[in-house]
Amino acid sequence: MQLLHSINKKQSLLRALPLNTKEKKMEIKGSREWNFGVEEEEQGNTASAVTVRGVLNTLYQNIRKDDNNTPVDVVIPIGHGDPSNFPCFRTPPTAEDAVVNALRSANFNSYSYTNGLPSARKAIAEYLSQDVPNKLTVDDVFVTLGCIQAIEMIITALARPGANVLFPRPGFPYYEARAASSKLEVRHYDLIPEQGWEVDLQHVEALSDENTVAMVVINPGNPCGSVYNAQHLEKIAETARKLRFVVVADEVYAHICFGSTPFIPMGVYASIVPVLTLGSISKRLGVPGWRLGWIVTNDPDGILKKSGLTRKIINCLDISTDPVTFIQGAIPDMLQNTTKEYYSKIVAIVKEAAEICYSKIKNNPVIDCPHKPEGSMFVMVKLNVSLLADINDDLEFCLKLAQEESVIVMPGVALGMKNWLRITFAIEPSLLEDGLQRIEVFCHRHAKKQ
Amino acid sequence: MQLLHSINKKQSLLRALPLNTKEKKMEIKGSREWNFGVEEEEQGNTASAVTVRGVLNTLYQNIRKDDNNTPVDVVIPIGHGDPSNFPCFRTPPTAEDAVVNALRSANFNSYSYTNGLPSARKAIAEYLSQDVPNKLTVDDVFVTLGCIQAIEMIITALARPGANVLFPRPGFPYYEARAASSKLEVRHYDLIPEQGWEVDLQHVEALSDENTVAMVVINPGNPCGSVYNAQHLEKIAETARKLRFVVVADEVYAHICFGSTPFIPMGVYASIVPVLTLGSISKRLGVPGWRLGWIVTNDPDGILKKSGLTRKIINCLDISTDPVTFIQGAIPDMLQNTTKEYYSKIVAIVKEAAEICYSKIKNNPVIDCPHKPEGSMFVMVKLNVSLLADINDDLEFCLKLAQEESVIVMPGVALGMKNWLRITFAIEPSLLEDGLQRIEVFCHRHAKKQ
Repeated sequence: MQLLHSINKKQSLLRALPLNTKEKKMEIKGSREWNFGVEEEEQGNTASAVTVRGVLNTLYQNIRKDDNNTPVDVVIPIGHGDPSNFPCFRTPPTAEDAVVNALRSANFNSYSYTNGLPSARKAIAEYLSQDVPNKLTVDDVFVTLGCIQAIEMIITALARPGANVLFPRPGFPYYEARAASSKLEVRHYDLIPEQGWEVDLQHVEALSDENTVAMVVINPGNPCGSVYNAQHLEKIAETARKLRFVVVADEVYAHICFGSTPFIPMGVYASIVPVLTLGSISKRLGVPGWRLGWIVTNDPDGILKKSGLTRKIINCLDISTDPVTFIQGAIPDMLQNTTKEYYSKIVAIVKEAAEICYSKIKNNPVIDCPHKPEGSMFVMVKLNVSLLADINDDLEFCLKLAQEESVIVMPGVALGMKNWLRITFAIEPSLLEDGLQRIEVFCHRHAKKQ
Repeated sequence: MQLLHSINKKQSLLRALPLNTKEKKMEIKGSREWNFGVEEEEQGNTASAVTVRGVLNTLYQNIRKDDNNTPVDVVIPIGHGDPSNFPCFRTPPTAEDAVVNALRSANFNSYSYTNGLPSARKAIAEYLSQDVPNKLTVDDVFVTLGCIQAIEMIITALARPGANVLFPRPGFPYYEARAASSKLEVRHYDLIPEQGWEVDLQHVEALSDENTVAMVVINPGNPCGSVYNAQHLEKIAETARKLRFVVVADEVYAHICFGSTPFIPMGVYASIVPVLTLGSISKRLGVPGWRLGWIVTNDPDGILKKSGLTRKIINCLDISTDPVTFIQGAIPDMLQNTTKEYYSKIVAIVKEAAEICYSKIKNNPVIDCPHKPEGSMFVMVKLNVSLLADINDDLEFCLKLAQEESVIVMPGVALGMKNWLRITFAIEPSLLEDGLQRIEVFCHRHAKKQ
């Protein structure tokens, strides 16, 4: 909580906000005097990348503060998926012990290898092999700095002139930011709210062409809280096979499932289509700040290897920095010593929070939830702005909500869905209830008079 | 040591090695069947990036091993600058304690901010302000994943169509690899061996034009072991000012100085020219695997800010992953609690090793050292191949040396200097002596008969 409260005001603003005229003039002046000045055009380019962090920073800046720059009210952070600040989500002592032991051994202070420590790769291969028919080996696993670096590596490796990638809408905007930076064309396929946010496969077919190199599937779903069943996953795999592109399976919320559908990894269908699985310890172990994730090639027929894509991923990793060596050194113990009871406890808390969230949303006529969340830590709700007197869209809703109620919620526009909201329910349940209550009060205050 | 010995054979090869015909055919076949196949042309592009790690991997693969893939002899790793595996260079307990305390507090498990935790930024600003007249503030410091990510961010921020950057020759090839990836033109200025590897400023002037955006200066020098005095640093700053580009000061070996010249940060001359200083805790605290470095703007006149370059660096950090939060959380204690005695002890060991290295090189007629090292952990020596019977260049020398003597030395060609060698002396002094003795035996065995 402390971190969230003290967020640095001077940090990056929402990239979409335009520079004012005075700032522009200053920058142009600078660029004329020195060779390294950034051109106005470039300022425009970078302004296109909207990230979750950029939007969150803007919302936090809107929170009312006293003269000491301290928020006047307890801030309810239901804008992003990081429960690690709440005691009930604390990582198990065994995970901390594993890190301390690796650090104290002094065996892991040196540089790592570009693909990760063999012991960490082996442990991750064994951990993930529990859920797929084609067992993974050390060579299938590339250890990354959280899932964020995994996304960076995949997008960089896939980028080539003219290529395009299919991303879900709504999705996780970091993909778009990275694609923009790599000049990889982005096409958005729809998810269908009325069908549990399943992939609109007809839309996928209509969008794709011979330059479509990959399709990103996020399951369990961020931001929709969806969990795909075996039948749907198989259909996705078959569509990708038919259209000749790879499936990038973002499974950072793997096993955070609490509805009737269990988690099934996309890698189960790797004999249909090659799958690049992205994951991390950030969510299941509640330690996003430890920056430990992976790219895994589910490639039983060696298609990724033969095509040169695996080599290209390795090339990208070669010129990138590695995860902290002692955290990699701790991975075998960490994965082995975390109990089923711990994992179950976390899912039970998230489930309880999801139930609270769903019932509170149902009480509020201004927001509507088309599909009860079954997984991940998020739910998408539709904002009915026609019921509000002085709020015109989701961004304005979120900015005013931050200012008036100190509640942080992600506007759908940042995820490609105008007039929707993404709510994170993975926080201490009592805080969540308080936050949703404040949203109700807020909606009531801004409601059109009948 | 263990890490170095067990290096994974399947990891990336020296990128410069061409693919064989069969591999090429397989890849082309792959690219035709699936949309994501990598084009042959792209294979060529990525092959241009030579990294220290790539070369090292190739050398390690050349070491003789038994049937269990274990080296038949003790490997002497004097090919790269990572002393952290040797007990005499072990990081102080205070640094480990700081990390353990931050981890156990559970206050640092969440995501960091894009620019780093304010407390870490403040501590680094205070640490570096000890040595410069214009005091640094929190806003001048951007925490990065080691110096490697700092280089990545700077090169990405500087890149624009048509721009070029001046790098030293010999230098640190990661700069070239990153520039190639960002399509930033590279121009190499010479260092002058006979003048203590000082920058050839006439060459700098001749190379630069209105599209030169920056000059990289590595001091203390990797790979030359040089330390620049105040007069030379001031001349560099004045040249950069005249030519209107920024100085990127790579000071990752800051304070590792043991000759007559003390370390002076480039930031001292920031009122002449704006300076971007890169550094880390990797070398001085012996923990490269902790991945904690920084970019610092020495910008008393606000030129970097006005030009838009600072904003561009922030934009790059916005879409990149951050250093581990609990290691950032440990930085204030780590920097405050490390004693002068520890720093002095490390410099004394490196000095002793440098003396051993220099005297052993003098005994060997095949290699010549034009300048006794005074800083960093490296020395450049000239290889006289005309004295050798069956070795034609530095790469062949290093490959055979690895195979026959299990000694790893970096070929100069990887640093832009054919028929030179880079030797790291920052290892346990007794091992260093053994290694240099083996090089002598090796040279003797391959010497031309008189």
